[in-house]
Amino acid sequence: MDKEELGRKLAGVMDVVSVCEGLIYAKTSGEIIMGQTLLEMDHAAIAKPITEMFKREINSAQKGSITDFTIGMDKGILLAVKKDESMLIGILGEDGKGSVGLLLRQLKNILK
Amino acid sequence: MDKEELGRKLAGVMDVVSVCEGLIYAKTSGEIIMGQTLLEMDHAAIAKPITEMFKREINSAQKGSITDFTIGMDKGILLAVKKDESMLIGILGEDGKGSVGLLLRQLKNILK
Repeated sequence: MDKEELGRKLAGVMDVVSVCEGLIYAKTSGEIIMGQTLLEMDHAAIAKPITEMFKREINSAQKGSITDFTIGMDKGILLAVKKDESMLIGILGEDGKGSVGLLLRQLKNILK
Repeated sequence: MDKEELGRKLAGVMDVVSVCEGLIYAKTSGEIIMGQTLLEMDHAAIAKPITEMFKREINSAQKGSITDFTIGMDKGILLAVKKDESMLIGILGEDGKGSVGLLLRQLKNILK
């Protein structure tokens, strides 16, 4: 996917999920390909701990590999979806609780 | 909360969320307090990577601390809720996608 197409798709997600505060497209190595956040944020510093989480294995649960995370936080929710060497992170604020399912689907659609 | 009360509450969750395949109550140190899973599983080996995930900080997202995880996997979903030094993990199979919100609320209710 070239950057122009990616940019268009990310803008489309921001349109559909109006409470989405930001999207970060990165390599699982942590390299940022594209990021857009309402507030100025250090995109690499957000992606890094999430790349580490994706490296974990929970084999004992017998459910296979980790494909996505929904990370509940005090004042918002981070979503992260991984496919091969790419990952896509979405940021929701406190008003975004009802949009988790919608945003997760949107993120998965872009990476599929 | 004593073990009898805890056991009763966990059984209550399994009743309400009939697709729930297991619950593990542990300390954030990884020590297992109580676990019940349909299939035999190594509860400590499930709790350990999740305790490590809770230790991560994503400060750059400006959303505070991590309170819970929903971990999508190839063949199911793991939920984990943390409060102070305790955490509660729930296991859903492939048929459990529609019950994520319900189970998450149940887990939070027990820890609150």
